[in-house]
Order: sequence, then C-alpha cells, then structure tokens
Amino acid sequence: MEAFMKSILPAGELNQFFINPESMVDADVDFTGTIYKIKNLGQFSFVHLSTLAGIFQSVITGECSLKEGSSIHVWGKVVTAKLKDKVLASKTIEIQISKWKTLSTHYESSPFDLTKPELNIHNDVLFDQRMISLRHPREKAIFKIQEALGEGFRRALRKRGCTELRTPKIVKEGAEGGANIFELNYFGQPAYLTQSPQFYKEFGVGIFERVFEIAPVFRAEKHNTSRHLNEYISVDAEIGNISSFEEVMAFETGVLKEVFEFLKLECSFELELLGISLKEFESIPSLTFKEVKVIVSREFGIHEENEPDLSPQEELKISEWALSQWGSDFLFVTHYPSEKRPFYAMDSEVNPEESLSFDLLYRGVEITTGGQRIHEYEAIVNKLKRRGMNPEHFEFFIKAHRYGLPPHGGFGLGLERLTQKIIGLESVKRCSLFPRDISRLSP
Amino acid sequence: MEAFMKSILPAGELNQFFINPESMVDADVDFTGTIYKIKNLGQFSFVHLSTLAGIFQSVITGECSLKEGSSIHVWGKVVTAKLKDKVLASKTIEIQISKWKTLSTHYESSPFDLTKPELNIHNDVLFDQRMISLRHPREKAIFKIQEALGEGFRRALRKRGCTELRTPKIVKEGAEGGANIFELNYFGQPAYLTQSPQFYKEFGVGIFERVFEIAPVFRAEKHNTSRHLNEYISVDAEIGNISSFEEVMAFETGVLKEVFEFLKLECSFELELLGISLKEFESIPSLTFKEVKVIVSREFGIHEENEPDLSPQEELKISEWALSQWGSDFLFVTHYPSEKRPFYAMDSEVNPEESLSFDLLYRGVEITTGGQRIHEYEAIVNKLKRRGMNPEHFEFFIKAHRYGLPPHGGFGLGLERLTQKIIGLESVKRCSLFPRDISRLSP
Repeated sequence: MEAFMKSILPAGELNQFFINPESMVDADVDFTGTIYKIKNLGQFSFVHLSTLAGIFQSVITGECSLKEGSSIHVWGKVVTAKLKDKVLASKTIEIQISKWKTLSTHYESSPFDLTKPELNIHNDVLFDQRMISLRHPREKAIFKIQEALGEGFRRALRKRGCTELRTPKIVKEGAEGGANIFELNYFGQPAYLTQSPQFYKEFGVGIFERVFEIAPVFRAEKHNTSRHLNEYISVDAEIGNISSFEEVMAFETGVLKEVFEFLKLECSFELELLGISLKEFESIPSLTFKEVKVIVSREFGIHEENEPDLSPQEELKISEWALSQWGSDFLFVTHYPSEKRPFYAMDSEVNPEESLSFDLLYRGVEITTGGQRIHEYEAIVNKLKRRGMNPEHFEFFIKAHRYGLPPHGGFGLGLERLTQKIIGLESVKRCSLFPRDISRLSP
Repeated sequence: MEAFMKSILPAGELNQFFINPESMVDADVDFTGTIYKIKNLGQFSFVHLSTLAGIFQSVITGECSLKEGSSIHVWGKVVTAKLKDKVLASKTIEIQISKWKTLSTHYESSPFDLTKPELNIHNDVLFDQRMISLRHPREKAIFKIQEALGEGFRRALRKRGCTELRTPKIVKEGAEGGANIFELNYFGQPAYLTQSPQFYKEFGVGIFERVFEIAPVFRAEKHNTSRHLNEYISVDAEIGNISSFEEVMAFETGVLKEVFEFLKLECSFELELLGISLKEFESIPSLTFKEVKVIVSREFGIHEENEPDLSPQEELKISEWALSQWGSDFLFVTHYPSEKRPFYAMDSEVNPEESLSFDLLYRGVEITTGGQRIHEYEAIVNKLKRRGMNPEHFEFFIKAHRYGLPPHGGFGLGLERLTQKIIGLESVKRCSLFPRDISRLSP
C-alpha cells in the first residue's frame, strides 16, 4: 500500500493547438476531437474534426474506416490550406494526419444528417432529439452566443460593483403572486417555485447596495406561444442609492452596450456563421406609455387606447416606428399605468396613476421590465393597503423596509428572448437548451 | 409630446472614489452610502458609511442627527487618518463631510446590534431575520467569499475551454433516482426538481466536449444536519476525450488551485476580517477507498471495514491523518465500491467491484464526488441490465451514447460546503443566503 501524490497534470490546460491554431503551421501537433464529417476520395479522405477550438479539416491518406460520431486522438502536421466551408474554424490551415487512436466508437448513425449546412427538421423532432440535434454547428452557435451574453452581463455588472446573489428557487411566497406559479409539497407544507428573485434582490440592496443574479425562474403559464417558456433564465439587477428610475434605464443601457461589445469579441465566428450583424448604439430612445398609444393609433390604426398595457402587436409596431425614426433596435417605454405594475413599483408623485417603471423593447418584443421601487416603510405599507392587500402577509418582505433600504430600482431581462431576437429565430424555445412548455418536460 | 433620447449617464459607472479610495487624499469627493454606525462625540461625530467599496470613516462637525440604516449622499474631502477598526475598508483615510443629503430615512432600529464586531445571535434568529442579519460585515463577508469562489470556478473552467450550460431544473427523470426528490404537478403530469445536472452535462460533452454549470440543485432529504441543505449550489464540470479518471482529478486540482488564488486576490479584506489563512498547494494526495479503511482501522480504531461507503467520522479521521502526513487540507479518495456509485459510473476493468470514481475531502468533509462515466452504448445498456434496471426507462439518456459520446468524466462540488470549510463555520446553512431545510422555507 503506497499513498501517492497527484501533481497538476497539463491535461486540464488547453492544448497549444487550441489556443492559436494558425500559429502552428509546420508544427507537429497532437490533440483529441470528435469526427464531425468524413469525405472519402479514394486516395485520401477529408476528416472534419470537432474540437474545443472549433471544427478543423484534417487529411488522412487512403480510405478512412472511421465513423462520424467517434472520437479520436490524432497526431499530424499543420499545413496551410485554402478552405471555404463556413463551419470550419480556420479557412487557412488543415492537419495532415500521420497516426490516430480511437477513443470512442460509433454505434449508430444520427437520425438526421448533422453535416448538412442547415438541419431543417421540425421543432418537435429538434426538441425530442435535443441531445443529438444540439450537435449541429448552427444549434451549438445559438448557445455559444447565449453563454457570451450571460458572461457579458456578469462582467458589466461586476464592473459596476454589483455582488452576485444566489437566492432560493423554492419559496413560501411568490414575488408576483397570481395563479401562474408551480406548487410543490415541501415536507408537508405547500411551497412554490420562484417566479422572480424580486424580493430577494431588494433584500440584497439593503446588504450589498448593488446586486445581480442570473438564474432560472418558473412561470406556470398555460399559453404555448413563440415568446414564452415555463422555465427561463432571468438576468436580474438591482441598484441602490439611485436618484430616479431614469438612472436605472441609463444603467441598463450602459450594461447592454458592453454586453453587445463582449458578444462581438467572443462570438465573431458564431455571428458570422449565423449571418448576424449587430448595430452599434450609444443611447436608447424612450417614449412614454401614453405617447406609444398615440403613435400606434395615429400611425398604424391600432385603437387600444383604453387598455392599461401594450399588446404584442403594439410592441411590434412601435418598435418598427422607433427603428424608422431613430434607427434603433431598442426602445424604452416608460410610465406604465400603476394598476398593471406590482405593488412594490414606485408611483409618480405628480401623477400617481403612472408608475416610475419601464419596459425595454428589442426588435419588437419586450425583453426587460424595470423601474424604481418603493423604499420607505410607510409608503409600502400604504401601497399594500390601497390595493386591498394585507401588509401582514408581506411581513417577511417589508421587514427590510422597516430597518432601512436605500432608494433603489432595477430590471429583469429574459436571456432566451434577447438571444432569440439577436439571432432572429421564430421561437424563444429554440434558445433554451432543453425547453420546457406546457407539453414538454423531457429531455 | 416629445420623444427624447437617453444617453448613457456615468451613473452606472463606479464613482472614482470607489475605485481607489487611497489615491483620493486631498480630493473633494461626493458619493452615496448607507450609515453603518454613528459615534457622537459632541464637538464632532464619526459616521461609518457603508459603500460599494466597503465601510469608510467620515467625520461630521457637531452632533449628528442622522440615524443608522439611513442612506445619504455626502460631499467632503478625503484626509489621511490612522484607524484600527477591522471593519473599515481603509485604515489610512477618512472623509471630512461638509454637506449631505438624506436619500432614505430610518424607520425603526434593527432588532440586534449590527455594529458589534460579532453578531452572536442564535442561528434561528439569524435565519429568521436574514434580510437584516446579512447586513452585518461578517455575514456579508461570507457571501463575498462565496461569490469569489463561484467566479473563480467560472474563470478557471472557461479558461480550460468549458462551455457554460443552463440546464432545466424541472425534469421528468432524476439523475440519481431514489426517494429524495421533490415532486410537483406540471400541468397535470408529475415532474421533479433536479437533484443534479448529471444527464444534461453528459449530453453537453457530446455537444461542446467540455461543459460546466453553476446552479441550484434540490434534495428532499429529511435529515437536518450541519452538512446538508435541501437546496444548494452545485458546481458541475464534465470533460470529454479523457484518458483516465485520474485526468479528471488532475483537472479539478488545477481548477481548485486557481480558485484559491482568485479568492485571495479578490477577497483579501474579507479573509483578513474573518481571520482566514489558506494553504498554498501544488498537488492533492490520494488514497484508495481500501487504503482509507485500513488506515482508519489501524490508526483510529474505527472498524467499519465492511461498510461500502465512508462514514462522516471516517472522512474526518482520514482527513486529520492526511493533514498530519502530508500537510494537506485536501484528500482524494478513489476506487469507491461500484455498488455505492450510480449506474453511469465506469467500473475498473481489473476489478469490476471498484468504480473509477473519487470523492474529494476538504478539512474533514466530502465536498466533491466525481469520476469517469461509461461512454459506450452497449456498456451502459449492460450496466443497467446488471443492476436490474430497464434500459427503456433511460432511453432519453442513453440515446446520447447510441450516437457517440467521447470518453468523459467530471465532478460536482457543493459551493456552500466549500465556503463553510474555508471559513470554518459550524453549519453549512450559514453559507446559504436564505437556507432551506426541513423546517425552513422562509424568508
């Protein structure tokens, strides 16, 4: 019996080839990858290898007996090449393979051709076979973009002094209330899945002043639309010691600008593969809720003036209008009617029927709701009472107000919706790795 | 009606004072903060202001009528000072306040003194009043350390080519099985809260080769101990094209080394406040499960040789032994009996009763379980059959194997447990912002 010491092997580090493949011309390299595509040409074969740095073309002398889907360790030399295939990570090099070792074997072929430029399968098949369909380069690209968006938010928020929270997903009290909430049995007592970290991030303002969380939230909404998921990723930020709700909008604008810059830096390959171009922006135009109603009525003949919210059609049309007027993909809509906003929203002193809140529309769809919140104890108690709600039921929440909370506000953003609109996909479900809807719970 | 353009205000950016307070000596500054502590001395008052950059001492001429818990905007001059209070972010400067503006008012005092060096309240009070008790500097420090640990993992894993996943928390099939799973009604069908992202991260290996996720998992375990939470944060990584399970251990070792380096860099203030010193380490010693049994029997007289797992007492004792032998806070234990590991664990070819898996102990407690997984389709089908499990029930999982998976392995780490053992707290619950246990569901 001999105890042994494990040293830190270089195994975990990225192979030099992965870090800068183009710099490796003429070098002998070895690395591992999964065979994405094989093209047998008799005298030699092209083998496209999927690696941590993307898909690379390699060349094997003679017929290739390997199978797509298998993983191999290859040894070879990097040579220059002129390649056109869009999925290839490098169009200027390929690897001449001298030796290989099989790491895993192929058992059965994929039910659809993963090597076609586009998958072109029905969403039901796409989602039923998600562990396979996500292997297609275009599907993978969606989630590399989503990862970069999440990371971009985290970096921009941390840079601004926000502390990352990890708040509970099983809760006794929902933030939004209503029937759209999943219930579970928690050791004999009823509990719920959180619809929003709202209450917790307001607590967080009292603790860290600026906070954020990027985490799943759950909505038991029964509608099955292209803009809804029953489980989605919410990017939530809340900042204290603000002077107005406009400061929250300016904060979000600055964050989004950096998120887009990070995305372009991190995902240039994926953006090009999917044919996406993103507009530069320095600012985001803003209209009040009332202004939007006037414009959509006048310009588009949509007469929903008396509705206390914007319909999806109104959001779409006012976004088209903002694009034509200001060239902006984004539009803030402010001063939503108080009655349609949650009890914790701060109302305008000038006109209490209007809340100091906003939505952010992007390419026709609401991606964010935000605003200033009530921070004084007596004000929140009075608001609850005016709504016919019992402050005692919210004791756990307004306790934070009782012992002092700085003036604060924040926003929540749906990560899948932002991804969807950036890529231009028809359904938000395409932007969830394993989407959950009213009829889909697996895989 | 006039639409207006919002420009990006500097509001979101950190005030210059917050970026490098010590460099601001003699400068006129203004910033916002929350009053942490007031000491009236008649001719002048010390006001300790909690800000995004920590707590700073400021001085106001005369009696101070402000209240602890209120937020203010201050204007003043930065001057040098010699201060000793451990909670102060800077011991070399203070701010002479000339003017202030109240941003939020104090309504009622905290139920316990937040300005004492130690809170010293019972855990039940600590958790019941969590939105208040977390405002204590030592409680805050726990979660700044936890945030740095999470960020350290993310950086080390991204650097190694891992893609961040966001997998569903509502699932049809659990990864671990068993009774310890929360059930909910999902639009009329039974669903569960995920106990682990295991199946999804194995799918992820087939898609991105290396993946990770830092997200909540849920365990409906009825025991109420100092080492369990019913909702906790799991740091999960899974890497493909490995040659052995030792490669996974080496990978985790390298990651942990960087996590500790990042923690020291990011949280020097908090580590000092809590009196924590962390050992440097280059490698982690390793013992087999059988070796551990022999040692704890011989050295500590614990005779549980026939148990197929390690008891908490055995984990504690072998950790003490490893510390005395090698000076290491960490210890890998390998080759756990196959019968106690899940069906997807790969067994040793030499001795099929042993699995190619490991636990990582840190300061006496298991913080990680990991290992190599079965990647070949026929092998996983055979393992399921040997266990008397029906492969059809796992069709959604083993589909990934059927179409090819690289050899792979990974690990899962409990973020709260790591935080707990680093800080040396008696209960893991202290490391959950809003802990969930069998009797605690709120706040």
